[in-house]
Amino acid sequence: MRIYDLIAKKKHGEALTDAEIGYMIDGFVKGEIAEYQMSAMLMAIWFRDMDAHETTELTKAMARSGDKVDLSPIEGKKVDKHSTGGVGDKTSLIVAPIVAACGVKVAKMSGRGLGHTGGTVDKLEAIPGYRTALDRREFLDTLRECGVSLIGQSGNLAPADKKLYALRDVTATVDSIPLIASSIMSKKLAAGSDCILLDVKTGSGAFMKTLEDSIRLAQTMVAIGEGAGRRTVALITDMDTPLGHSIGNALEVIESMEVLKGRGPKDLVEVSLQLAANMLCLADKGTLEECRRMAEKAIADGSAFETFCHMARRHGGDDSVLRDYEKFPKAPYTLEVKAEQDGYITRMDAEKVGLTSVLLGAGRETKESAIDLSAGLVLHKKYGDAVRKGEPLVTFYTSRPEKLAEAESLYREAIRTGSEPPKKIPLVFARVERDSIERYDTGC
Amino acid sequence: MRIYDLIAKKKHGEALTDAEIGYMIDGFVKGEIAEYQMSAMLMAIWFRDMDAHETTELTKAMARSGDKVDLSPIEGKKVDKHSTGGVGDKTSLIVAPIVAACGVKVAKMSGRGLGHTGGTVDKLEAIPGYRTALDRREFLDTLRECGVSLIGQSGNLAPADKKLYALRDVTATVDSIPLIASSIMSKKLAAGSDCILLDVKTGSGAFMKTLEDSIRLAQTMVAIGEGAGRRTVALITDMDTPLGHSIGNALEVIESMEVLKGRGPKDLVEVSLQLAANMLCLADKGTLEECRRMAEKAIADGSAFETFCHMARRHGGDDSVLRDYEKFPKAPYTLEVKAEQDGYITRMDAEKVGLTSVLLGAGRETKESAIDLSAGLVLHKKYGDAVRKGEPLVTFYTSRPEKLAEAESLYREAIRTGSEPPKKIPLVFARVERDSIERYDTGC
Repeated sequence: MRIYDLIAKKKHGEALTDAEIGYMIDGFVKGEIAEYQMSAMLMAIWFRDMDAHETTELTKAMARSGDKVDLSPIEGKKVDKHSTGGVGDKTSLIVAPIVAACGVKVAKMSGRGLGHTGGTVDKLEAIPGYRTALDRREFLDTLRECGVSLIGQSGNLAPADKKLYALRDVTATVDSIPLIASSIMSKKLAAGSDCILLDVKTGSGAFMKTLEDSIRLAQTMVAIGEGAGRRTVALITDMDTPLGHSIGNALEVIESMEVLKGRGPKDLVEVSLQLAANMLCLADKGTLEECRRMAEKAIADGSAFETFCHMARRHGGDDSVLRDYEKFPKAPYTLEVKAEQDGYITRMDAEKVGLTSVLLGAGRETKESAIDLSAGLVLHKKYGDAVRKGEPLVTFYTSRPEKLAEAESLYREAIRTGSEPPKKIPLVFARVERDSIERYDTGC
Repeated sequence: MRIYDLIAKKKHGEALTDAEIGYMIDGFVKGEIAEYQMSAMLMAIWFRDMDAHETTELTKAMARSGDKVDLSPIEGKKVDKHSTGGVGDKTSLIVAPIVAACGVKVAKMSGRGLGHTGGTVDKLEAIPGYRTALDRREFLDTLRECGVSLIGQSGNLAPADKKLYALRDVTATVDSIPLIASSIMSKKLAAGSDCILLDVKTGSGAFMKTLEDSIRLAQTMVAIGEGAGRRTVALITDMDTPLGHSIGNALEVIESMEVLKGRGPKDLVEVSLQLAANMLCLADKGTLEECRRMAEKAIADGSAFETFCHMARRHGGDDSVLRDYEKFPKAPYTLEVKAEQDGYITRMDAEKVGLTSVLLGAGRETKESAIDLSAGLVLHKKYGDAVRKGEPLVTFYTSRPEKLAEAESLYREAIRTGSEPPKKIPLVFARVERDSIERYDTGC
């Protein structure tokens, strides 16, 4: 077998066989296939796409390129969750303890934020003392004791993905659905859970800007998961507007705790409940309605919050901050940005809002940047809200007072005010299963 | 400027600007642009193509990446010629001395053979003593004295092409018309002639298998040449059947001399006269008809042959072999392959005939292979000829008797015999100028 022939085959639009895909990934990881050949292949895939079978085989080959997490010592079904990333998306902090409180194990490895989106690992590190790296034994013990462990990615999981992603990142081949899907799912397969719930974001703040692309990505990932023997469901959720009101690491932990205490903002609560219900349903805890009621109960009776506190302690974290937010480090500078006219918020560009939070110090401009855990912003008015001139739109929190003016101007670009209320946008657009798709139109 | 953005731009089907193309080629030659990025770009070009302006700019950038041959010390118009390569294509050896004998200078740099096609440099080296590498002074002196110098490519001509071609060769991006056209034309521009005649081969033995692709390649190259200020014309000539009867280096020199002595095979004579007439016409020596008569006269009066002999001596070659072919080294083994049935030759796969000659030792299997200058084959029956069972079809010449059986079976695969004479195929399909194309249907 020669990689040259495989490039030519894909270039002409033919499907690669299982053996060819295996040869390609193994050879690339071993360094036997040159990067200049793989990048030509990636570009050919960008143009010609891969069918469902090829994409599943690619994902499986990537997953077996490194370590696999063995969760078999833990009894019962293990459920994982993945979000394609958004602004203000702190749902992992919320749904993981809810699901665990309902008796289903959640062993979740998360990433750090990059660009305009945040990452769960950064948010967890806003809890003083919380260790996102545990050894295998601590990880399994935490899972057994608390039902949930939220950690960073450890070990040599899917090294093929790491190498391929680095190449895609410099050759303009990131935005290919089979390549995105295989990248995400190879890590999920290696992470060892039985069931996977995918939260595919759609809209201005998401990687996928259109609903149709988001659905195609969801369908591709669900097909991969099911093809690899994992029960997999995807929800398509809105990311045209940031989720919840808080953006920034400590601020998002606080908002997540508010949800777990039954006091969260409506949109975040609704999305979290739907995600949690679907995770419970994947683990055979009942119908979707029954699972939703279970999740609501875990909030109402405080068990989800207690589960989170227990896990945080088990990870070395100081859970007293979760009860007394005053203990979180505070940003020294704040600015309230006020409305310049009466009207309704008719547009809220989530990507620009995310970039505003990065300017304030809440995110990374490059992989090496340090994060200011106390920085961020709190939205007072969101998409669809009525607003009067002079009312506060948003409060900024930062240690970089020199950035406030630029942040204000970027934020003002992100929102538009009109005289009529805009049309409602669903929070959850659709639910994608192996062979079916259910579309929703519940507005926000 | 970032190569990433240029890859993304081309990937989305946008044209690159002159500055972007210059940045890309300069950066690649300097090693500032990684091969893995350039190969992604090449694949994007394969899919999206380049328009005429982009292709011309690419070619100019490649031509200025290295040395340029300065032919200004030589008076009058200098005409170059390029063939896209074929089996039995020895026309450079014929048309260069014809054109020179008619008073137009021909400074031609040629390449070596690879794959199933031969190269002019290898053929010249079949003349004992002929040096295909001359220094600049010898080259100019030969041009002045003989009106023609046929040499190998020397100096650092279009290094961007060398580097790009090496990458295309391993990433399945050779077969892209703008990339083929810019590769050929960058070397022609750097080689310094005022006018360029292109012989674009079409058919089973050519790189371009279909007439339409050949015409597109010709039009692209003519546009580049004219865009760079060189008068450029292309002929589309047949390569479904080998040209002439002899294939192999010494054998082709002999057949070329036969043409110059007025005794050549009809097809080779016709194609050579049309090429020579077009070269003379490019140099403003008269109408195409007048130029053809001039070329015919240069054969008839022996001046073309004498010009070749003079040039060969000037290059250190023993021109007595050109008068007495017995002095060429002889292949120790021969085999006459005979017809197995009566009929007409209805198909002759030029590529397979070429590969047969490689098996016999006349070509290179890899870039490092040595060539047996005496090896090759002589066709006794060609496309359209009537043949009786037992008549000789071809004679093989080789130093590898162990290859004869394989060569015979490959040769038999290359030809087909039918009971009816096949339809005539033109020798020259079309003549492509800047804004026009003239189609011919003169049969062979």
